[in-house]
Amino acid sequence: MIVALKAGTTPAQREQLVNWLAGMVTEVHVVEGTSCTVLGLIGDTRRIDQELLESLEIVDSVQRVSEPYKKVSRRFHPDDSVIEAGGVKIGAGFCVIAGPCSVETEPQILDVARRVKAAGADVLRGGAFKPRTSPYDFQGLKGEGLRLLSEAKRATGLPLVSEIMSIETLDLFEDVDIIQVGARNMQNFDLLKELGHLDRPILLKRGLASTIKELLMSAEYIMSGGNEKIILCERGIRTYETATRNTLDLSAVPVLKERTHLPVIVDPSHATGYSRLVPPMALAAAAAGADGVMVEVHNDPERALCDGPQSLTPEQFAELNGRLRKLLAAMEA
Amino acid sequence: MIVALKAGTTPAQREQLVNWLAGMVTEVHVVEGTSCTVLGLIGDTRRIDQELLESLEIVDSVQRVSEPYKKVSRRFHPDDSVIEAGGVKIGAGFCVIAGPCSVETEPQILDVARRVKAAGADVLRGGAFKPRTSPYDFQGLKGEGLRLLSEAKRATGLPLVSEIMSIETLDLFEDVDIIQVGARNMQNFDLLKELGHLDRPILLKRGLASTIKELLMSAEYIMSGGNEKIILCERGIRTYETATRNTLDLSAVPVLKERTHLPVIVDPSHATGYSRLVPPMALAAAAAGADGVMVEVHNDPERALCDGPQSLTPEQFAELNGRLRKLLAAMEA
Amino acid sequence: MIVALKAGTTPAQREQLVNWLAGMVTEVHVVEGTSCTVLGLIGDTRRIDQELLESLEIVDSVQRVSEPYKKVSRRFHPDDSVIEAGGVKIGAGFCVIAGPCSVETEPQILDVARRVKAAGADVLRGGAFKPRTSPYDFQGLKGEGLRLLSEAKRATGLPLVSEIMSIETLDLFEDVDIIQVGARNMQNFDLLKELGHLDRPILLKRGLASTIKELLMSAEYIMSGGNEKIILCERGIRTYETATRNTLDLSAVPVLKERTHLPVIVDPSHATGYSRLVPPMALAAAAAGADGVMVEVHNDPERALCDGPQSLTPEQFAELNGRLRKLLAAMEA
Amino acid sequence: MIVALKAGTTPAQREQLVNWLAGMVTEVHVVEGTSCTVLGLIGDTRRIDQELLESLEIVDSVQRVSEPYKKVSRRFHPDDSVIEAGGVKIGAGFCVIAGPCSVETEPQILDVARRVKAAGADVLRGGAFKPRTSPYDFQGLKGEGLRLLSEAKRATGLPLVSEIMSIETLDLFEDVDIIQVGARNMQNFDLLKELGHLDRPILLKRGLASTIKELLMSAEYIMSGGNEKIILCERGIRTYETATRNTLDLSAVPVLKERTHLPVIVDPSHATGYSRLVPPMALAAAAAGADGVMVEVHNDPERALCDGPQSLTPEQFAELNGRLRKLLAAMEA
Repeated sequence: MIVALKAGTTPAQREQLVNWLAGMVTEVHVVEGTSCTVLGLIGDTRRIDQELLESLEIVDSVQRVSEPYKKVSRRFHPDDSVIEAGGVKIGAGFCVIAGPCSVETEPQILDVARRVKAAGADVLRGGAFKPRTSPYDFQGLKGEGLRLLSEAKRATGLPLVSEIMSIETLDLFEDVDIIQVGARNMQNFDLLKELGHLDRPILLKRGLASTIKELLMSAEYIMSGGNEKIILCERGIRTYETATRNTLDLSAVPVLKERTHLPVIVDPSHATGYSRLVPPMALAAAAAGADGVMVEVHNDPERALCDGPQSLTPEQFAELNGRLRKLLAAMEA
Repeated sequence: MIVALKAGTTPAQREQLVNWLAGMVTEVHVVEGTSCTVLGLIGDTRRIDQELLESLEIVDSVQRVSEPYKKVSRRFHPDDSVIEAGGVKIGAGFCVIAGPCSVETEPQILDVARRVKAAGADVLRGGAFKPRTSPYDFQGLKGEGLRLLSEAKRATGLPLVSEIMSIETLDLFEDVDIIQVGARNMQNFDLLKELGHLDRPILLKRGLASTIKELLMSAEYIMSGGNEKIILCERGIRTYETATRNTLDLSAVPVLKERTHLPVIVDPSHATGYSRLVPPMALAAAAAGADGVMVEVHNDPERALCDGPQSLTPEQFAELNGRLRKLLAAMEA
Repeated sequence: MIVALKAGTTPAQREQLVNWLAGMVTEVHVVEGTSCTVLGLIGDTRRIDQELLESLEIVDSVQRVSEPYKKVSRRFHPDDSVIEAGGVKIGAGFCVIAGPCSVETEPQILDVARRVKAAGADVLRGGAFKPRTSPYDFQGLKGEGLRLLSEAKRATGLPLVSEIMSIETLDLFEDVDIIQVGARNMQNFDLLKELGHLDRPILLKRGLASTIKELLMSAEYIMSGGNEKIILCERGIRTYETATRNTLDLSAVPVLKERTHLPVIVDPSHATGYSRLVPPMALAAAAAGADGVMVEVHNDPERALCDGPQSLTPEQFAELNGRLRKLLAAMEA
Repeated sequence: MIVALKAGTTPAQREQLVNWLAGMVTEVHVVEGTSCTVLGLIGDTRRIDQELLESLEIVDSVQRVSEPYKKVSRRFHPDDSVIEAGGVKIGAGFCVIAGPCSVETEPQILDVARRVKAAGADVLRGGAFKPRTSPYDFQGLKGEGLRLLSEAKRATGLPLVSEIMSIETLDLFEDVDIIQVGARNMQNFDLLKELGHLDRPILLKRGLASTIKELLMSAEYIMSGGNEKIILCERGIRTYETATRNTLDLSAVPVLKERTHLPVIVDPSHATGYSRLVPPMALAAAAAGADGVMVEVHNDPERALCDGPQSLTPEQFAELNGRLRKLLAAMEA
């Protein structure tokens, strides 16, 4: 860690800071410049709070040379992690997760499940607990939704992914193979800590305005609790552009693959908000090196009018899946 | 609500949409343009999901004419709400909340409490549960921190504000006059719903990347549960600018005062991240019409080196408070 | 165009507004709602200034149903435009533009030109006028740089693209086949107007914080002057994320392809700022449907230490080009 | 300047980099850490291109300890600069600039000029060349607009500020006391260089998505040419929030006042886009320590319907000016 001091720092102020830092790291190396002084901290600097240090009056800036995360870092775990969930290996080959945004009825979820399975999906997604901006919007079928997902799982053999919003509902997720943490809860640290004690894969979505580093720190929360089965998901970030719902940050895929050994998937449905943008962005995600995509699929174009229009139809999904497989085959060849 | 249809929409598609919408609102008015058709929806459109409608293939855009919130809206409650907490009336006169970021020790919190009280603070702040980006950073004294805050309250008579991170810890907050929801939890809807059942003032901070509308919708979550004692807090938003920790959006103050009857305060300490920027931005908040400010104050410049440097000293706070009172007096004259 | 009026609007205010608008469009249709009134404007609303209208005290919001651009719109020109430059057809097949960020020396540009040509590049890029944040940074070889580019063109037959910063230097660009407008000049309207009088292809880069709509409006500036040979370029937008130089907005590719008939290319070198991110993002751009990519290539890994490290080596470029061609072939199959 | 190298850097790579850097600075100090090596560069590092260095494969990060700007820095010029323009001293006392967005007619500009003068304005603003997103929007009266401004100056004695878009129109600005560079041209470096050769005050507006550092670098462009009479203007930045046109970044005021000796003013009219938000944000700007504000004022509420609704009426302006003076008096007392 490198700490640059401001020009007017007195020797007494500097000494006080050096002494304080010396109690926390192996060595504090002082470099005197023409217009300022720089401290080089050597040792384990993870326990030093960077923001705090930066805000000191005499400190000009602080730069961390090693990352603040450890268990998620590829530096300490060079090989790709493969997360097994219900017989599917995520991180080994391309994984396609598909299903409706919300579970609505038994016929709906059974039909979608069968059709995405037939079209080649690896995992079934479906929301039972829905985080909604407005208290007046539909909040999901909750426990009943999870029960219907279990039926779809039994009928098709597809493993399940579904979002949890509160640890108090954990018992209802017994049959869910991958527990999803949504973008709004990426920094709900109490929830992350609880999930860290499970032995179940967690799909952690990037927050709407979270940095790549913060996403990795949230994964570190889960891993530091003991649960190392984490799948990261890029789902669009908030920017000034309004032509799409959010801005899909596909560069995050190769950046994450460099920094961590965890699998990285992409959700083009929520990122763009428009079904016609899902196929090009799913293909782009595969080309960028993602380990999979998660796309919304609904079964009923009539009902879709009111409940799934950012979703693909099963036919569109089947076509996309075919194009994905062709692209992936060409890239491997 | 105004729904613009795309140019190529067929009569059959249009009819299907009109029929669906007609089941939800009082009247659907069709306006035929030269190049497109527009639907005017008349009635209670709050139950229509705007995002969903926007994502329909035949829909060009949707525009809500009335706000999606009701209880927080000034339209239905023209007078300013005044929230009483421990004898202090927030929303009637300017309110100054001060105290340390984290509660550390009994002497620390007692000393800070006495000194901010002497300098004119109205409410004492102090963090016992701390949301931290890294699992390796200090997470607060928790229950013990709240116990120490109670002592400071008894010693000074100042009402307390402190942040809750999980509803499971609610029992520990018995003595806390105002329960804070932090920026990272602004869309933790399960937590908001639980707080909606309390009869205790809630200080709701704007999320790091939340819009003003989303802040109001989160307040609506709490109010729709029955708890109408809400104080809103602008604390900086995430932008590309790195010269300050976040970008304090002071224009949000007059915008919020227009749209809602709830009191609005400003936190310049977290927004800017630098103690030297706190006084100018606190004064600016007062000039912009805020109902109060919340500032960090620590008692020990020596310790501050490692633990509170974005905070003001009690002396700096006293000086700021004097300048605030002078500015407010001049504005009222 | 749909204009929603605020709740408290008086009949007199409304009449005044309706009369004013009636002088500009074919018809003003008034729709009375339960809580507000909406005006539907029918006719050519391009001459109405939307921002101005929105800022009226009695206006709640304004929504444009037809786009404010015309010549760039796919609505009026459904077929893809193909821009011919030096024998290359951009918009018909995938186009690869390659070359150094800056022209440095004759051996450098000749060597790079020959090697990217051998590796399959279609167009040679090279900067002679360089926009730099600091006045103390290298500003390019200017006229001499353009002369060296001409030599490289003669030696290889590759058409040239190079950036113009001021119309006063136009004479120097005689041999340049495609004139580039950089991100910082995307809204230098005086420059756009001048380029509108040329009969030369223009490569218009999206501004660092420009919306897709603003990019199209800037293209409209050029087209409205008579020059219809425009190639659009997505090159990353400014967001809060610092892991990459900018955030490459690949969703802009399918969005632009919907809205306009103009070809769309992607610059992954400037967007990401790191050479190792260029291949995955170039492949992703192709998968997303871009008409081409523009990548930086340098010839000398030794010199690259100080002058081209976000660039690919010719070998890396050749490998990328091979992978691109394979991916494109698979997508067409 | 501090350069952190990546973990896997070989001794040969490091030596090559050190040798290259050694040719540019006084001394390169090598600090070996447990997991990486850091270079401390001592001497004049302004000629080193930071972005370039950062993009080297072996470089982890680069941190500039001294600022890349010099002439604008307060470090080398501790006292506030005072810019004199037509008898008004900007930077010594609070300066109020007022006038219409666009010059329209002789009666309009004369009337507004007289009324803002009577209400206490120090400088008259008026746009003759208007940068507009659409080529179909009104582009200003150009030379005729500047002639009308001259008349208003003669009639009232108020100095003038007006925006230049191209150096070719400079002759028309003979009577303009302060030449404005708009947000869209903040990085039109060719224009900045030309203005650097003048002996006339320049009002430099912050770009829509420019950092504070980039604003200072653009000022450095002008100053490095010899013209040291620069006034900086914060006018809102582009963020995800849509409740206001842009997000007024008032924290930029104290940050700029720390870093530079140049005067800093604020434009709340363009930043917020709504006249009702102008008074609170103008007052907030004064409280935050700005050296002045620039506000739009129109004279004709009837015409304002179509041409100046983000502007204040002269009466509103007079009231605001009175409140500003009261606030400033209280802050000085």
